[in-house]
Amino acid sequence: MKPLIDYIRSLPDFPKPGIIFRDITPLIENAESFAKTIEELTKAVQSFGKIDKIAAPEARGFIFGAPLSVALNAGLIPVRKPGKLPYKTVSVSYELEYGTDSLEIHEDSIKPGDRVLILDDLLATGGTINACRQLIEQQGGIVVGFAFVIELVDLKGRQKLGENVKSLITFEGE
Amino acid sequence: MKPLIDYIRSLPDFPKPGIIFRDITPLIENAESFAKTIEELTKAVQSFGKIDKIAAPEARGFIFGAPLSVALNAGLIPVRKPGKLPYKTVSVSYELEYGTDSLEIHEDSIKPGDRVLILDDLLATGGTINACRQLIEQQGGIVVGFAFVIELVDLKGRQKLGENVKSLITFEGE
Repeated sequence: MKPLIDYIRSLPDFPKPGIIFRDITPLIENAESFAKTIEELTKAVQSFGKIDKIAAPEARGFIFGAPLSVALNAGLIPVRKPGKLPYKTVSVSYELEYGTDSLEIHEDSIKPGDRVLILDDLLATGGTINACRQLIEQQGGIVVGFAFVIELVDLKGRQKLGENVKSLITFEGE
Repeated sequence: MKPLIDYIRSLPDFPKPGIIFRDITPLIENAESFAKTIEELTKAVQSFGKIDKIAAPEARGFIFGAPLSVALNAGLIPVRKPGKLPYKTVSVSYELEYGTDSLEIHEDSIKPGDRVLILDDLLATGGTINACRQLIEQQGGIVVGFAFVIELVDLKGRQKLGENVKSLITFEGE
């Protein structure tokens, strides 16, 4: 089997000029590389200790967060855009390059003391992920670490997140 | 452990008056019921024979489609709203109560002859799912069956889909 990085398709100028989009669809459409990715994520987060729940932002975060939840015997907390969750929510706003955005979880998703892993497909500047952390912590959860399939190292998102950050595939540049 | 149906939260008047929304978040936030759901889905689709790929519509379809892909040693095809997929796409339009909507997959997601399971969290009228089937078939895939966590039986979506339809939890009414 090829290294996982060889299953990522790099597409220039998406979603806008100057951005290289790292496309995970070849990785997940291949049964072998998808299974290997989940296996590698499982190993990568071992050092975080017990994980009660995985918080994953929509929609690509679900693709890796859901199977990792099953593999780790953890619950899955979907972190969603406003208006998507049907029950009472708590939300956090965060800054984008232009304007702001918000993320929500259900108010009963976290029990105080829950040990939570935050997981997404890709770490860029860390804005979304830092917002996830705020949501979890304001509900009394303990963020035990962060895991990503891909990390764009030059964007230095890792610096926002502290020690417990794992990624499987790294790219330089933006 | 309680029966899976007891982990579904029924919320009246979401997203609009008169609709009872069946909320899966309690099911997936509990590690035991989430794992059990994937185990039951795995058993439910055994009779469909070999499955090469699972096609799942965003975003809740990913939550069940991704772990089932890993469990079945299949690839995962994300079926997305327009503008989300970064590479060349094929799309299909389908009718909603008011107006139309579209779904897309990457043009290279399906190889002719691929045996594809279509999976979503919930079967209602079957409009979205039937659109997924059209996408898969127009790319040369063989749709071997359909699986759902929840089926709203009175909406008769099953009648659009033929013989190979499995669901774990059923509700009467809309």
